[in-house]
Amino acid sequence: MAEISLQFPDGNKKQFDAVATAKDVARSIAISLAKKAVAGKLDGQLVDLNAPLKHDGAIEIVTADGEDGLTVLRQTVAILVKAALKETFPEIQFGPEKGDADGFYVDTDKSDGQVSVDDLAAVSDRVSAMISQKAEISLEQLNQADAAKAVAGNPYEAKMVADSEATVFNFYTVNGIRVLSEGVSFDNAGAVKFFKLLSVAGAYFEGKSSNPMLQRIYGTAFYKQADLDADLQARQEARERDHRVIGNDLDLFFVDPKVGAGLPYWMPNGATIRRTIERYVIDKEVGDGYKHVYTPVLANLNLYKTSGHWEHYREDMFPPMDMGDGEMLELRPMNCPSHIQIYNHHIRSYRELPLRIAELGMMHRYEKSGALSGLQRVREMTLNDGHTFVTLDQVQEEFKKILTLIMDVYKDFNITDYSFRLSYRDPENTEKYFDDDEMWNRSQSMLKGAMDDLGLDYYEAEGEAAFYGPKLDIQTKTALGNDETMSTIQLDFMLPDRFDLNYVGADGEDHRPVMIHRGIVGTMERFIAYLTEIYKGAFPTWLAPKQVTIIPVSDDKYGDYAESLRKEMAAAGIRVEVDHRGEKMNYLIRDAQTHKIPYTLVVGEHEMADKSVSVRKYGEQQSETMAASAFVDEILKDIANYSRED
Amino acid sequence: MAEISLQFPDGNKKQFDAVATAKDVARSIAISLAKKAVAGKLDGQLVDLNAPLKHDGAIEIVTADGEDGLTVLRQTVAILVKAALKETFPEIQFGPEKGDADGFYVDTDKSDGQVSVDDLAAVSDRVSAMISQKAEISLEQLNQADAAKAVAGNPYEAKMVADSEATVFNFYTVNGIRVLSEGVSFDNAGAVKFFKLLSVAGAYFEGKSSNPMLQRIYGTAFYKQADLDADLQARQEARERDHRVIGNDLDLFFVDPKVGAGLPYWMPNGATIRRTIERYVIDKEVGDGYKHVYTPVLANLNLYKTSGHWEHYREDMFPPMDMGDGEMLELRPMNCPSHIQIYNHHIRSYRELPLRIAELGMMHRYEKSGALSGLQRVREMTLNDGHTFVTLDQVQEEFKKILTLIMDVYKDFNITDYSFRLSYRDPENTEKYFDDDEMWNRSQSMLKGAMDDLGLDYYEAEGEAAFYGPKLDIQTKTALGNDETMSTIQLDFMLPDRFDLNYVGADGEDHRPVMIHRGIVGTMERFIAYLTEIYKGAFPTWLAPKQVTIIPVSDDKYGDYAESLRKEMAAAGIRVEVDHRGEKMNYLIRDAQTHKIPYTLVVGEHEMADKSVSVRKYGEQQSETMAASAFVDEILKDIANYSRED
Repeated sequence: MAEISLQFPDGNKKQFDAVATAKDVARSIAISLAKKAVAGKLDGQLVDLNAPLKHDGAIEIVTADGEDGLTVLRQTVAILVKAALKETFPEIQFGPEKGDADGFYVDTDKSDGQVSVDDLAAVSDRVSAMISQKAEISLEQLNQADAAKAVAGNPYEAKMVADSEATVFNFYTVNGIRVLSEGVSFDNAGAVKFFKLLSVAGAYFEGKSSNPMLQRIYGTAFYKQADLDADLQARQEARERDHRVIGNDLDLFFVDPKVGAGLPYWMPNGATIRRTIERYVIDKEVGDGYKHVYTPVLANLNLYKTSGHWEHYREDMFPPMDMGDGEMLELRPMNCPSHIQIYNHHIRSYRELPLRIAELGMMHRYEKSGALSGLQRVREMTLNDGHTFVTLDQVQEEFKKILTLIMDVYKDFNITDYSFRLSYRDPENTEKYFDDDEMWNRSQSMLKGAMDDLGLDYYEAEGEAAFYGPKLDIQTKTALGNDETMSTIQLDFMLPDRFDLNYVGADGEDHRPVMIHRGIVGTMERFIAYLTEIYKGAFPTWLAPKQVTIIPVSDDKYGDYAESLRKEMAAAGIRVEVDHRGEKMNYLIRDAQTHKIPYTLVVGEHEMADKSVSVRKYGEQQSETMAASAFVDEILKDIANYSRED
Repeated sequence: MAEISLQFPDGNKKQFDAVATAKDVARSIAISLAKKAVAGKLDGQLVDLNAPLKHDGAIEIVTADGEDGLTVLRQTVAILVKAALKETFPEIQFGPEKGDADGFYVDTDKSDGQVSVDDLAAVSDRVSAMISQKAEISLEQLNQADAAKAVAGNPYEAKMVADSEATVFNFYTVNGIRVLSEGVSFDNAGAVKFFKLLSVAGAYFEGKSSNPMLQRIYGTAFYKQADLDADLQARQEARERDHRVIGNDLDLFFVDPKVGAGLPYWMPNGATIRRTIERYVIDKEVGDGYKHVYTPVLANLNLYKTSGHWEHYREDMFPPMDMGDGEMLELRPMNCPSHIQIYNHHIRSYRELPLRIAELGMMHRYEKSGALSGLQRVREMTLNDGHTFVTLDQVQEEFKKILTLIMDVYKDFNITDYSFRLSYRDPENTEKYFDDDEMWNRSQSMLKGAMDDLGLDYYEAEGEAAFYGPKLDIQTKTALGNDETMSTIQLDFMLPDRFDLNYVGADGEDHRPVMIHRGIVGTMERFIAYLTEIYKGAFPTWLAPKQVTIIPVSDDKYGDYAESLRKEMAAAGIRVEVDHRGEKMNYLIRDAQTHKIPYTLVVGEHEMADKSVSVRKYGEQQSETMAASAFVDEILKDIANYSRED
């Protein structure tokens, strides 16, 4: 009989029969390991515990511990879900399914009305029954031709099999129902402990909007109840903070893939937040010496050939437009070349440096439709962009100035969870970087010096610099615990060279400036997604789309008083509305809380008599009565102070 | 001999020999007319006085009076200029030339260094010599084959002849020099009275940037000295007000066809003006009940198929971008469909109407590169756009409200020269318009009623309405006397239908809203071009990029005092700079005037001692000394009041 050679994680190799399974291998090591084993991993690929390994390679035994163990558990549940669905809806067809560290899903097409969230309980019950009955899950491996025959009635699986590069296809049979799986499985449903079907959502087959939309059933599974509970709670928390959910609830924005995937429409509420932030950022930057400009979103493709974007970044760019006469126009993927045009429009003197050009610059990047998500991943975005042009001597001071501005802005938005990463070139491979040792050495030590001067903690990453210069990234944690680069300060020695930028020095000669790319809050889209999540939609007063709602106890009696207050406040620049609906007081107050309006004012007999208001702040249970004028003073102070409490 | 039948302007017809010329025809009417005649016009085309007419048609005799007379004069001078150029530069080659109601030009290519403005005096002298020598200008008419031979050495003229659909080509010989002309000419240079060569500028052959750039010599000519003088003065005035010239002088913006024709870059000064206007417009609209939004500049092409833009407006649109998966994205040519998406995102109730959606919406329109001009004609523009959705009953009130807002804005910008044009459908051809008699009849009478209520003078234009509804245009006069539509209020019955827009009425049923397109100041680009011209670049304080410059009498001694003033003013939101250059006082003051800065403050010993400033307003010769705090109060009042004097 043929033999195969398997290498263990410790480097040792051993010979096995070619029909040996991962279970056999585990058993050869220890019976206890064979009992704990849930799958094998051959050359990094999960393999069913009971499938013949057939070829040489590096072997691992997967147990319940760790991500692979969870993956196998979830792939198993996905198979049970398929079987349960087939029991419930015999006509159902399946698309792909997946189980991994995040959970699992199963794509379905039920021709007579789609699977809905209401069906999940019944499906879940059937899966539970398989588990308690310890139903056997038996594996059958078919070659491509046989697999194609087995799935012939299903156009999705037929395409998946036909397009696959695999030579062997796993089919599992449970309760007499045979399903195709792209994963692996336990051999008995009884080993599944804790699972949960979570939700249903549409998903295009193969992620292409030209294909039919399937219904995707999401779920998760764990080996321990406590882990499942923690995961469900984290999911609940994520849902509560999900900017797409809040964006819908508070009517901030929407995206309609039919009109354009990744192209958000900002509804009045979201637009108010964005406008407030844009004005804040511009005023802050202008006050700090930046010259704000407007530059076109289109440019001749040659500009991006000169900058190098077309060569290195083309796959993220939109297709060029042929305007005739040999003119190709391109939606810009970045604003740097535009600001270089501004710099280069005049001969520059050393007296003008540092020259700080800034813009809320709209850019377009091609992202695959599957990668798009709410405001977080979009195809059209507006970046809080800035480029400062300095002499090499000025790098340290300018870097400090930018960093101080960033810290200042973070304070105003109450951003407190962040860390610094300073990226240098790799000292062992300096030839991989823009060739100017003096620039690199001096500027890297200036960046470090500035961080030290400012007394900031930072992490130094050698070899993480861009080709064109060292940089500082400021990483924030999103509400969901993900790392995100919020701000960046990047030195660039290359673009000044490519565009032949110069300034006339005190010596009357031409010199090359250093260019610093810097972003403070990133794109409006991503920043507002981030803020929505950290604030859970309860925007501080200065940003809230509606800052005040006034509820008359009786609209007939006190509506006019409420209106007079509204006018006064609106004239002072406060975003205020009167709720004239005349519904029950408690309902209106609850509604104001649901919409997370910072201040709810209730006015009735007493308030009208002495020109006062009964004020209830968002999230508080108590209200306080005060003179209307005192309230206006208070809220104006709140707004002017960016709702900071310091 | 063959005969031709010519019809006179009075309708009479007469037979002539086929070789008869316009001069013969004039002579047949009256000797005096033959003496005054400068050309003929056969079927609307100018023909040389001495060219055989050859075919039947309507004939007119052109004399010095009127536009045609000027055209002939200028075409004649263009021919003389060509001859003079050839005398001066024997190697010179010509592209097209033109003479018309605006003046004339001649395109040239002088291989060894181009014709420059310095050459004009010599060329002008030679033309004057031809005039005083009463040089004969003799006509020769060649067929296409012979013309091609005659111009064989000149690639431009060779292409012009080859591409032409004419059967006869005019060549004129003066002083023994033969030149091709696309116009007609006097037969003697002595008939030319007053001419002037004006300027030289580059112009691509055939207006295509892929072709070589020729040097275009501009000039004009008149029959009377007084007319020439008036024209030269008007040109001087136009140059002084030309927003492209001022835009360059004051560093407001630039356009670089190499980076993108019709795609302006707004330099910091221009961007400040634009930002100030944008904030003003948004605040004004939000205060008037508009909901401001941001919508994407791209949309699926299907949106513009539904709206009808793709069908009717395609040639003004950018080429669609193929994103794969069958998705075609289009740069929007108008914002209306985007605002319809906002309307349609929710089910709307009659209680929400009028619903006012507004945006500074960026749009892209394809204009031929030859038509582009500064900020006036561009390919990327940002429109002060708004759409209000109303019930038919609300049309009159909403129309009045919009009009009142427009008048209010005009006052703030000191726009005083405008007129109203109300456009109705043609009552004789109602079938040419959107089919809803009630809508048309009621809305037209509501528009008229509103104008009358507001006591405004207006002109009614039957048959000038759009297909989709009646409208009001507000026409302003530019500084150069051109008519321009600044504002518009257009009713639209069609788009609500095409997009199936509804609102739920008080009756619980669906009803179709009326959509009102309205623009107040038009695009930012064109509006700022307009303002630059009417203000001659002297922007009122609230708009001026720099509002105050402070000049210390000695920078060493009083520079610090100037800086302390600057900080104080900047903190109050005033755009102020200190001129630390330390040049001579008079030079610095003159420089501030050249840059049209509203306030120049001079500070010295005396001012520092009693914390005062010596204030000089733009355009005034006198300065006034006042307490620094009093000046701050004054300028803040000036800004808050939009620099209005009422």
